[in-house]
Amino acid sequence: MKPPRPRASTAELFQAAVAGDRGALARLLSVVERGGDSGRELAGLTFRRAGTAYSIGFTGAPGSGKSTLASAVLAGLRERHDTPVAVLAVDPSSPVTGGAILGDRVRMQEHALDDAVFIRSMATRGHLGGLAAAVPEAVRLLDATGWPLVIVETVGVGQVEVEIAATCDTVVVVVNPGWGDAVQANKAGLLEIADVLVINKADRPGVQETARDLRLMVQLSGTLEWTPPIVKTVAPTGEGIAELWDAISSHRRHLEVHGVLQVRRAERARDEALRIAKRRFDAALDAAVAGAASAGLLTALREKRMDPEQAAARLVGEVSRELGAESGPVPT
Amino acid sequence: MKPPRPRASTAELFQAAVAGDRGALARLLSVVERGGDSGRELAGLTFRRAGTAYSIGFTGAPGSGKSTLASAVLAGLRERHDTPVAVLAVDPSSPVTGGAILGDRVRMQEHALDDAVFIRSMATRGHLGGLAAAVPEAVRLLDATGWPLVIVETVGVGQVEVEIAATCDTVVVVVNPGWGDAVQANKAGLLEIADVLVINKADRPGVQETARDLRLMVQLSGTLEWTPPIVKTVAPTGEGIAELWDAISSHRRHLEVHGVLQVRRAERARDEALRIAKRRFDAALDAAVAGAASAGLLTALREKRMDPEQAAARLVGEVSRELGAESGPVPT
Repeated sequence: MKPPRPRASTAELFQAAVAGDRGALARLLSVVERGGDSGRELAGLTFRRAGTAYSIGFTGAPGSGKSTLASAVLAGLRERHDTPVAVLAVDPSSPVTGGAILGDRVRMQEHALDDAVFIRSMATRGHLGGLAAAVPEAVRLLDATGWPLVIVETVGVGQVEVEIAATCDTVVVVVNPGWGDAVQANKAGLLEIADVLVINKADRPGVQETARDLRLMVQLSGTLEWTPPIVKTVAPTGEGIAELWDAISSHRRHLEVHGVLQVRRAERARDEALRIAKRRFDAALDAAVAGAASAGLLTALREKRMDPEQAAARLVGEVSRELGAESGPVPT
Repeated sequence: MKPPRPRASTAELFQAAVAGDRGALARLLSVVERGGDSGRELAGLTFRRAGTAYSIGFTGAPGSGKSTLASAVLAGLRERHDTPVAVLAVDPSSPVTGGAILGDRVRMQEHALDDAVFIRSMATRGHLGGLAAAVPEAVRLLDATGWPLVIVETVGVGQVEVEIAATCDTVVVVVNPGWGDAVQANKAGLLEIADVLVINKADRPGVQETARDLRLMVQLSGTLEWTPPIVKTVAPTGEGIAELWDAISSHRRHLEVHGVLQVRRAERARDEALRIAKRRFDAALDAAVAGAASAGLLTALREKRMDPEQAAARLVGEVSRELGAESGPVPT
């Protein structure tokens, strides 16, 4: 009988993943999903080593064909360049079954035997906020372990998906021809974060109208420095895929030439820190409310000895004293 | 020339609203929407006086006919009973124009001259979390100023709308016949909060299938104490409206007989306190990041002297010391 293999530490797994061990990488991605102390340890290892990879986010309404499009871009990249590509398929709306992801992944199967492609699904473990924080960390892990290009594909268009897509260097927003689709994308906050706009399924009627709508909305909300180009694609036939890649590359050059990339990445790291900090307070508040003092709070509220504002003030005091004490003395 | 009328204080406005001044009530609802110090002062006045009104939330996908349904229930109530009714129409997705609400409100116009009906739209001022906190406060204000029945209607089915509807005593979830509608409602988290289920537009095909889907899902996720009844309605003709009111009344009796109502209200007040506390930390963190120290944080992140986890720890320490100091000494 073989003795049980001792559990590798996070640092050992990281070394193995850097050396090219895909199994170690997969296990580390699970560490990222779970978070906690190991997650924080890993974050310390990846952050300093990361910074060379470029990340591209694909987002858009379900059914817009993002997944087929991302797959076509991946196929094009593998054919024309020799860049290794990692793909993260993120589905915040499927915490349990992951069904949607598995269905979509079928299209990615053709790349499964390609050594220079790494595909991973991420779904919610615990609450949504956790996933939004885990994705940039997962991208950094792939970056630090030598993947120069990371594609992040989100399923759905909720606030969390928008937040996740926005953590990428170039954000590709996918819409379809047809009345109202561009307006919906705008309402969902997608146009705000778009660096490249794609009208996929461009063999359907209404392409010109959708392009016009998009152009108008982009002009209204756009910045002076970069106007998102609008690319028309038919993902299954490959039509427009080369143009899409050109648009992504132009945006990348724009960021690099103008020195914006490093600034944006630092800002995103700061936003990440902000989200982590918010989650820490949220968790401490949830624990305070679930704790022993909660019964007293409930009674006080039921008997109207305290109103919600007063109860909130008490919770704020309790949690800030607790976390203030944990975080040590005032730095000088 | 008349001297300018001195601005009434929040307490004066509250006294006037209690005495039946609708203008004062409308102004206080704006105070609730704006929040801040006046909002907190008002919360202290309303909480102790409130507790006799019953609140009913209507929620469901856009186009399901919630608004027409709520209007039909209101008309039925006014015909058969002499209860005054207040209606809050809440649209978190229309921060700017409030267009959807105005459109829907046309159906409510027939009640505009009824002295025993008070109708008010609420839209987002500032951020979404603010509105979710403002609605229960608005319900309490209506309660404290003598409205025994408050109908809350939410537009849209985002997380915030679900949260808002869930703050009511009885939650009515509206779906339509047709494949997938029940499943969508389930995915949006609506079935979890439903006390009464309505299949509106029940003159369309697919009613039996939708009823069967709903029954199955409710059985899977329901509690032992209360199984949400399923009511079929055709709002414009009034079909099923009396049955809907019976179902709402049954749920109310169930809560009152079993003593659940007071417990649930205290729990909701505690959840409200939790949300207020979370918002306070969020606001303090946002301020810390926008403040002078932010430039230093950005540089440290760009130069990789600090990773996001470390930056988060610094923010947590800073904010908890600040709010801990504000909230005074440890209570004994």
